[in-house]
Amino acid sequence: MNVLSADELEARLRDIGARRYHRLHPFHHLLHGGKCTKGQIQAWALNRYYYQAQIPIKDASLIARCTDPALRREWRSRLVDHDGESATDGGIARWLALTTALGLDHDYVVSLRGLLPATRFAVDAYVHFVRERTVLEAVASSLTELFSPVIIGERMEGMLRGYDFVTRDTLAYFDKRPPQAQRDSEFALDYVKRQAMTPEGQQAVLAALEFKCDVLWAQLDALYHAYVAPKHVSPGAFIPADQEQS
Amino acid sequence: MNVLSADELEARLRDIGARRYHRLHPFHHLLHGGKCTKGQIQAWALNRYYYQAQIPIKDASLIARCTDPALRREWRSRLVDHDGESATDGGIARWLALTTALGLDHDYVVSLRGLLPATRFAVDAYVHFVRERTVLEAVASSLTELFSPVIIGERMEGMLRGYDFVTRDTLAYFDKRPPQAQRDSEFALDYVKRQAMTPEGQQAVLAALEFKCDVLWAQLDALYHAYVAPKHVSPGAFIPADQEQS
Repeated sequence: MNVLSADELEARLRDIGARRYHRLHPFHHLLHGGKCTKGQIQAWALNRYYYQAQIPIKDASLIARCTDPALRREWRSRLVDHDGESATDGGIARWLALTTALGLDHDYVVSLRGLLPATRFAVDAYVHFVRERTVLEAVASSLTELFSPVIIGERMEGMLRGYDFVTRDTLAYFDKRPPQAQRDSEFALDYVKRQAMTPEGQQAVLAALEFKCDVLWAQLDALYHAYVAPKHVSPGAFIPADQEQS
Repeated sequence: MNVLSADELEARLRDIGARRYHRLHPFHHLLHGGKCTKGQIQAWALNRYYYQAQIPIKDASLIARCTDPALRREWRSRLVDHDGESATDGGIARWLALTTALGLDHDYVVSLRGLLPATRFAVDAYVHFVRERTVLEAVASSLTELFSPVIIGERMEGMLRGYDFVTRDTLAYFDKRPPQAQRDSEFALDYVKRQAMTPEGQQAVLAALEFKCDVLWAQLDALYHAYVAPKHVSPGAFIPADQEQS
């Protein structure tokens, strides 16, 4: 293995996104193409809530491992973005506005009782990854945000066009995210390009992004299996009103 | 919440098994009913290898947390069962004999390159659970073994009848397991019945068994999604020779 130049490393990272980011997943084609039932969208929002809720825990886990105050300060803005300055702002509060607008009970959503187990396993794998791997790998695993402005644009446009029960207000979460994601991912990309100086470190960075793509992909696989086809809902998980029990 | 008697607790645990153990999963109906393709059986054995391979790590993680030498001694027999006394005996070696008999390359299997990410996430969730929860919960999470002799009997009979490429020799792993599982699960059941003396402890024991059922169930959900229907294989995971790329 040779050391890649910073630009080569970036190109490899972007290639992983082009091949493995969940923008390519069939569930997103349905969601963004106006082909989902309301129940399927509820199931998506309900399960994705757990991902949203764990992101600050993931970020604080990363901060807790940084010996560099500058990196801790930089990463802290992610906590602010997700947890807000009060209970009514921040990304998690906006996600809960989405689940409520979709007709899901707030207490049911935050209880996590309806989650697919596979959602929990995938999201928890992300938190454990950030706690257990190197700080460099932990930072690299955030790099899916490089690709999120595009998918969010597709989602906003597709969902507003495809579903009469979805308004711009419903999707306020996504309105806020692109500039945050761009700022954060530029920082993280610059960090890994500067810090990954060995072939081993660079391979670890690439593997971390693949891992994170898997975390996102597996969540959609589970949604598809439970709510699209063959609609086998795991015992105890959410069953939408418009889905017959199988 | 009231304290359950030991017998009530056992009845609740057995009821969880009756409702949520993966014996009920549609993938197992196919597998045991002679309805799987060879490629689907390969995918099952390949992915389940990771579960087998992590079991001693799970068990050592539990032993590492026990302050009671008697419990450590008892649990040590599980390491012997899975890791054997040499490289050619033990449960993992017998599982690899199964994957080889099914036509999978040994090095490919142990490389873990073909795993579905959801397999990894579910199995790792089990290891993390045992490391992070109480020893009582960790012991309780092993109680799916109460139900394994029955499913193994069904599997042996169904696979020998259903597939001409499966022999009793192929399934040597399963020949050995029922008496081990019975001994281990009787010990663990007795342990939780004696140790779970509060309503909270008993609820935690019940939740631990539900969690473990989810771990097993989610692995089959992922296999079904990737290899039965709609046959969406996660990027990078094993694709059987008899499965067209979708």
